[in-house]
Amino acid sequence: MNAEIITIGDEILIGQIVDTNSQWIGQELNKIGVSVYQISSIQDEKQHILNALKEAEERADIVIITGGLGPTKDDITKKTIAEYFKDTKVVEYSEVVDNIKRIFKKVNHPFNEVQKYQAQLPSKATLLMNQLGTAPGMWFYENNTVFVSLPGVPYEMKGLMTNEVLPKLQKEFSLPFIFHKTIMTYGTGESVIAERIEDWEENLPSFIKLAYLPSFGRVRLRLSAKGENKAFLEETMSKKVQELKKLIPDIIAGIEDGASIEKRIGDLLKERKQTLCTAESLTGGKIASTIVSVAGSSAYYLGSFITYTAKLKEQLLDISKEVIENHSVVSEEVAKQMALAAKNKLETDYAIAVTGNAGPTTDNNDKSVGVVYIAIANNKGIDVQEFNFGQPREKVINRTVTKALELLQKNIMKK
Amino acid sequence: MNAEIITIGDEILIGQIVDTNSQWIGQELNKIGVSVYQISSIQDEKQHILNALKEAEERADIVIITGGLGPTKDDITKKTIAEYFKDTKVVEYSEVVDNIKRIFKKVNHPFNEVQKYQAQLPSKATLLMNQLGTAPGMWFYENNTVFVSLPGVPYEMKGLMTNEVLPKLQKEFSLPFIFHKTIMTYGTGESVIAERIEDWEENLPSFIKLAYLPSFGRVRLRLSAKGENKAFLEETMSKKVQELKKLIPDIIAGIEDGASIEKRIGDLLKERKQTLCTAESLTGGKIASTIVSVAGSSAYYLGSFITYTAKLKEQLLDISKEVIENHSVVSEEVAKQMALAAKNKLETDYAIAVTGNAGPTTDNNDKSVGVVYIAIANNKGIDVQEFNFGQPREKVINRTVTKALELLQKNIMKK
Repeated sequence: MNAEIITIGDEILIGQIVDTNSQWIGQELNKIGVSVYQISSIQDEKQHILNALKEAEERADIVIITGGLGPTKDDITKKTIAEYFKDTKVVEYSEVVDNIKRIFKKVNHPFNEVQKYQAQLPSKATLLMNQLGTAPGMWFYENNTVFVSLPGVPYEMKGLMTNEVLPKLQKEFSLPFIFHKTIMTYGTGESVIAERIEDWEENLPSFIKLAYLPSFGRVRLRLSAKGENKAFLEETMSKKVQELKKLIPDIIAGIEDGASIEKRIGDLLKERKQTLCTAESLTGGKIASTIVSVAGSSAYYLGSFITYTAKLKEQLLDISKEVIENHSVVSEEVAKQMALAAKNKLETDYAIAVTGNAGPTTDNNDKSVGVVYIAIANNKGIDVQEFNFGQPREKVINRTVTKALELLQKNIMKK
Repeated sequence: MNAEIITIGDEILIGQIVDTNSQWIGQELNKIGVSVYQISSIQDEKQHILNALKEAEERADIVIITGGLGPTKDDITKKTIAEYFKDTKVVEYSEVVDNIKRIFKKVNHPFNEVQKYQAQLPSKATLLMNQLGTAPGMWFYENNTVFVSLPGVPYEMKGLMTNEVLPKLQKEFSLPFIFHKTIMTYGTGESVIAERIEDWEENLPSFIKLAYLPSFGRVRLRLSAKGENKAFLEETMSKKVQELKKLIPDIIAGIEDGASIEKRIGDLLKERKQTLCTAESLTGGKIASTIVSVAGSSAYYLGSFITYTAKLKEQLLDISKEVIENHSVVSEEVAKQMALAAKNKLETDYAIAVTGNAGPTTDNNDKSVGVVYIAIANNKGIDVQEFNFGQPREKVINRTVTKALELLQKNIMKK
């Protein structure tokens, strides 16, 4: 079963926002066995919407439309959808008016006529109740295709997908089983890996697809399996992964099951009842905020020192002026001392520390832009590594975060 | 002039990555007067690519294709592009082989045959040199449409766009002037704003479009102008913004010129030669990392205490056990003391402090999930505000970051 996601609204097209809705919808549909065939972001303009609906109907069994359901005049989605479907006009749904009144009463806002506009919806819609906002979702059948229209506000869209759309799809259709395994590698380029696994790749069964995903200095190999027989798929996938492991054991960093590295670190630490802290310079808290994006992280993550300046490294982490002068603020020695100081002060089992030059300029130190030191301290000792992440700034910061979490995960698993 | 962006590869469709490439391309094209009409994410599959190219050619004057240029077998973009264009076959470009050899030599990797595959490109291509990787960009003319094919690795794509594609578009086409003004409002819903500005909205000239963008509790009003005469557009836009300001002066938080709030805060602080630090609980460093995402932030940003646990609030920020017990760790008093302690310890002009419950559960405190206190300390005193950002966790964290930066900006400008 194929899906197409259509996002309506200029804010994605002019680059004002990143389309995180489609990513989330893609993940969730995949989990229940629906493949996303295409994602289209289009303008909030009548003819464009009509064309996109027509094209999507030809390509997909399920069309998920997000955006364009607000109460204001720039939103013409509802009218256009009504026009697209046969025998459909816009009518006012009294249950939606009541729901809007209820929400407005709760927050003490007077109800006005413009809000009623949100209750005027295509007559053919099956309404999906939105617990978190005033615009309901809508579900249509037409020409053997399911059309679902959802508000663009992320948490409203997610609520409607989780509570209404996904269960309804699972109830009404017999869906195949889709799953992915992603093998993370390090230190070797795409083309070299391809050569080493050429024979294995050529002998993959047709229901398992391989993709190479290079990003921030590592290549992930994603295997995607799709079929009716779950046990058979899982068995074949597991066999193929074992074969692959034997071919490139030296460069495999780990196997992803869809969980993020920060989630896996959290699980490891909880399991071992251990704790973690950080001391960050160039990343300015991005390692910490990645770690606490996981619900329940307060069980193992205590806190961080963000010492963006040399002075704060002295003041908060007791790194002496001499060490900074002798080794430079961007150095193995400073990273090491930052990790040890954070670990000792916060009394954790692990500490990550990073110092480096994110660029574009190097303020007052002798290392080039892109040079980063990452230290991981544990109860037995400390490891430091030097990296050169090049440019630009954004890449240096992101690679530092990814690499630091990778090193931490390996460090925890080694013990 | 209309553009379409086509991203090729399953990783966006299955939700493994967020499509930040298209956002960036959208922004950059807009800056030089090219409107993005549609963004399509499609599978790395021959017929799908051919269909998407055909549809895009009908809709757009410029088609920018990203992804699918790697050296491995899952990338069929090049062959399919060659097939799409008339009189085009795949040939080996010796200058590309030389460039790959050069890059491999630099990092001491042996050159192998698989890498040669990257030099096999459609014969009709004008090559765009990639300074940061092995896959060159390609530029084609066909049926009065420009097609540009770029690698999907973000920094390689950005390098090629900045150094090659954007200058070439500006050189070869006479482009209109496009610009946006975004008015941020607070505390009032979309429908109420729409009612208050109804007459003004109806009288906007046809070359200025208005969009309502609700997100994380505030509505932004985006005005987009497009035309040939820059001075006239700017004058009209400025007049319309002035009129709007008079209609809703009570709810306007500021006017965006495309710069992010963290960039504007940075500019304000640099101008005033003032400094900033943070003390974060529930956001775990996300405020700090947002601030340091701006190049040059070390001129005004010193660092942060991330005190994710109550114990660390005591230990690092000297907040007494009694205060935490009497007021709860999520309280006005604790936020206030966190801000004052950070400001005093780090000797800055401003400090932001946040404490709250991101959820999904509330560990050991009496406030509900979503309740957040934000304090801003300056050299004259301290402001604290209570918020309830509801659920889920991601929304609470993001709204806290946005709101904290908003409050800081207002606080700086008030002085």
